[in-house]
Amino acid sequence: MLYLVGLGLADETDITVKGLEAVKKAERVYLEAYTSILLVEKEKLEAFYGRPVIVADRELVESGSDEILADADKTDVAFLVVGDPFGATTHTDLVLRARELGIESKVIPNASIMSGIGCTGLQLYNFGQTVSMVFFTENWKPSSYYDRVKENVDLGLHTLVLLDIKVKEPSLENLARGRMIYEPPRYMTVAQCASQMLETEEERKGGAFGPDSLAVGAARVGAADQRLVAGTLKELAEVDMGRPLHSLVLLGRKTHDLERDYIREFAVDKATFDACWQKAYGASS
Amino acid sequence: MLYLVGLGLADETDITVKGLEAVKKAERVYLEAYTSILLVEKEKLEAFYGRPVIVADRELVESGSDEILADADKTDVAFLVVGDPFGATTHTDLVLRARELGIESKVIPNASIMSGIGCTGLQLYNFGQTVSMVFFTENWKPSSYYDRVKENVDLGLHTLVLLDIKVKEPSLENLARGRMIYEPPRYMTVAQCASQMLETEEERKGGAFGPDSLAVGAARVGAADQRLVAGTLKELAEVDMGRPLHSLVLLGRKTHDLERDYIREFAVDKATFDACWQKAYGASS
Repeated sequence: MLYLVGLGLADETDITVKGLEAVKKAERVYLEAYTSILLVEKEKLEAFYGRPVIVADRELVESGSDEILADADKTDVAFLVVGDPFGATTHTDLVLRARELGIESKVIPNASIMSGIGCTGLQLYNFGQTVSMVFFTENWKPSSYYDRVKENVDLGLHTLVLLDIKVKEPSLENLARGRMIYEPPRYMTVAQCASQMLETEEERKGGAFGPDSLAVGAARVGAADQRLVAGTLKELAEVDMGRPLHSLVLLGRKTHDLERDYIREFAVDKATFDACWQKAYGASS
Repeated sequence: MLYLVGLGLADETDITVKGLEAVKKAERVYLEAYTSILLVEKEKLEAFYGRPVIVADRELVESGSDEILADADKTDVAFLVVGDPFGATTHTDLVLRARELGIESKVIPNASIMSGIGCTGLQLYNFGQTVSMVFFTENWKPSSYYDRVKENVDLGLHTLVLLDIKVKEPSLENLARGRMIYEPPRYMTVAQCASQMLETEEERKGGAFGPDSLAVGAARVGAADQRLVAGTLKELAEVDMGRPLHSLVLLGRKTHDLERDYIREFAVDKATFDACWQKAYGASS
């Protein structure tokens, strides 16, 4: 049996009781560690599970799935995914490959950032499509996300923006020279995201958002030091929300008073927040 | 401290290790039991937690929140919510009330149907706004959900439809007579939902969907007897997916081949599925 086990968002105790049982009895335990991270070290997970954990990088999962699935028809293999196995990153390809090999699989769900972002007090019903923001470089500033944000904005909906992480990525220079030397890991911050969004708007000029648009930054959702900050994109571009992971929600205009009351508490500046809110938000659906 | 603890989707072992610790040490434990249900009895939860569980109905949560919060500044109170505390039903009002009373609160996230629906293999990125479907009566067939589905359809996005449950609701007749006698609980099925959708389309004629539109029915997500069925709305209107809870996803046209490969396995009739797919889906985003 292949178990795809969601680990939740913050630390080793966010696994479900059901998930922990599956991990404890698995012959081999893999940890998918390139699309998201837990906020604890692998050694802490191993101590908690009482099992060795094999870190699975992108190469192993995308090209070496048969290695992961070896003997999974006769024994139990656990594949651990931060968040939910079918959340922000969908591991359908691994399940499809298991199906082809006649291996049964079972998914053990957990909190994903796609629903955990509800901790902002913003109602998940009011969210449109989720988008991803990648690190811009000097010559590469992909803005296709902007079209989807604009679609949400036009409907008055919130947009969850998931922020890029770079783990075990060779630098372009090293890639060109065929050397597998990796860059140190990088995690996009709320400030970087807000600032890239403003850069895109300046280029696109589609009016999807601007410096005075309200957004909520979320850091370390589900952790003891979870932090939420509400403010304009201009304000958020300057905010320091501490260690990863970060996400951002751009507010849609169709908001409920309860949502306002909830996030106002986290405003960078309550006067600015109230003024911006007054001008553009709170349209009834 | 007020702990809002997500229970996940299926049974008592879907609670997280962190959540279970909070429940075990709480002075009082409430279970919100009117917007969703676990698939196990209260007694099983009590045995698993080693704590008595107070079932909180709508009256208690909406009018008696101060009773729930009593002494929570000095002792620990756990408020258990099926799924995630800020998922399909957002308990922001309880947290806001706690804030007013100077009581700290802590949310322990878990799988919500809003992300757990990823088990269908449909990518959460491709979902638009979520809608709710209520039980139609002879004279009351609210169709405001249709406008939001249409917005999703126009953008090529999937729509998650959450299905009504009626727990501890007085019948209209008893309400009129001022008697608090409750109807037996009712849970909407995928078949009822598909059939009501077709009824709305007949009335609205907006072309958002029709008898040949593809959808996926999901029953008991996360449980050992989880079941998925893919088919046209006409087919799903006839399908029997067994005991609750059910949800439905209306497919958007912007789909990925991986999504097709994944759900085709669950097709009521693979030939019909392929023909309908061929005609209307798979538009690249």
